[in-house]
Amino acid sequence: MTAAGIGKVYLVGAGPGDPELMTLKGKRCLEAADAILFDELANHELLELADAGAELIYVGKQPGKHCADQREIEALLIEQARRGKTVVRLKGGDPFVFGRGGEEALALSAAGIPFEVVPGISAALAVPAYAGIPVTHRGCAASFAVVTGHNVSDSAVNWSGLVHTIDTLVILMGLSNLAAIMIRLQESGCEAERPVALIQSGTGPRQTIVTGTVGTIAGLALAVNLKSPVTIVVGVVVRLAEQLDWFHTTSNPTVGDPNLASGLPHVVSCLSRAWL
Amino acid sequence: MTAAGIGKVYLVGAGPGDPELMTLKGKRCLEAADAILFDELANHELLELADAGAELIYVGKQPGKHCADQREIEALLIEQARRGKTVVRLKGGDPFVFGRGGEEALALSAAGIPFEVVPGISAALAVPAYAGIPVTHRGCAASFAVVTGHNVSDSAVNWSGLVHTIDTLVILMGLSNLAAIMIRLQESGCEAERPVALIQSGTGPRQTIVTGTVGTIAGLALAVNLKSPVTIVVGVVVRLAEQLDWFHTTSNPTVGDPNLASGLPHVVSCLSRAWL
Repeated sequence: MTAAGIGKVYLVGAGPGDPELMTLKGKRCLEAADAILFDELANHELLELADAGAELIYVGKQPGKHCADQREIEALLIEQARRGKTVVRLKGGDPFVFGRGGEEALALSAAGIPFEVVPGISAALAVPAYAGIPVTHRGCAASFAVVTGHNVSDSAVNWSGLVHTIDTLVILMGLSNLAAIMIRLQESGCEAERPVALIQSGTGPRQTIVTGTVGTIAGLALAVNLKSPVTIVVGVVVRLAEQLDWFHTTSNPTVGDPNLASGLPHVVSCLSRAWL
Repeated sequence: MTAAGIGKVYLVGAGPGDPELMTLKGKRCLEAADAILFDELANHELLELADAGAELIYVGKQPGKHCADQREIEALLIEQARRGKTVVRLKGGDPFVFGRGGEEALALSAAGIPFEVVPGISAALAVPAYAGIPVTHRGCAASFAVVTGHNVSDSAVNWSGLVHTIDTLVILMGLSNLAAIMIRLQESGCEAERPVALIQSGTGPRQTIVTGTVGTIAGLALAVNLKSPVTIVVGVVVRLAEQLDWFHTTSNPTVGDPNLASGLPHVVSCLSRAWL
């Protein structure tokens, strides 16, 4: 509690799933919190770090409505802090990567509530890494972009521009629109052969990888019945997964597209920048 | 040591500077390591986590040459692991974000050395966050891209495409080419008024922020004599820093461009997507 009797809010990134990807700072905040607001996007194992006296407040999906209203969450953060509490808002991934952390921070700022942002490991980078896919790689990927696939027709994402501008494209929340996204990419001039990986439940014990191409991946995803959350990676770096799949175990199956493995040049050709 | 007498290599991201942004998994690896290969890109405070008996091997800049040769580092990782050691390769930021971690992982894979990748908090996301800049923000930034500014004329980065495709552009290692990059962006159709932030020594005690526009920032950077490492953020989200600069203290000065503060619309107009 500050001298004025007002608490402080920590917007803490929980990381992509593996609870060991929490930061030391995030752990310290969870241990010190009087109240923790959480939803299903953060690994609930992390709540075990909380003090026994801490209040755990679920603000995720509610029966009858999609989820707790964003404005209600902001009001709750402010109310808790005004009671003098140290409050953690635990968010999946990183608070500022499609996490609405910016909105919560603006609300806190407007209300005069002190806050800190504790970055988390973003699924956009770590989920590919756990699948053996570096989002950048010398000689074949000098840029990456991250977008959501939540709404394909949403003009906020320039799909056409991405095809011609970005080496590695990471799409979050895109599984339900997968076929439409792949069509959109091809209509924009993307080669049907550009490699694609789908990573389900990335960084967790049930991580599953499906590899294919822009032309084949939608069919493959249907065949293996993937479920959200899925991280989509489009780009030649996907081919590196064949050699770098360090997390692969019998409990973490990789479903390979035989066309990708045999019909396409080996990953060494990555260096030729064939798809860039 | 494995049954076969071969050790294991952990490619560990050290995060962007603040040592508390290390992950729990990275800390565990550092504590367990027999050998740690490090350079000046990772915060050396983290080496204090190492066991007293661990060998600390510096592989950074050497007198007379730019830095230890990448192939030499890979050979050293392999050699140490073949001696049965648990080896940590500590890398600034995230190993797979312009960290050459992919090359090291490929070398290990080819040599048959078991390895794991431990993602780190990337400066590309966390440095803006510590400056109060969310790389995404509902209504004004639905995409972000990360590139290096190491070589402007390098055709590997499609500067022109980025201007028209991406809402938030994060440029790492671009300070020495700042003026050339800003000219290139304007030649590609970027408005001179698009907001830019330069963040020096991000997440550390000497973090300094300079805000301006694509048209003014190069001159401002010269005036305040910024030094590397500097993270460059281009996009309307930069305006949010005015309200969200939570890390700002007297020891973390923010150098504002008066033109940005007064001459441009307030951050609320962010929602109008005026620059997108």
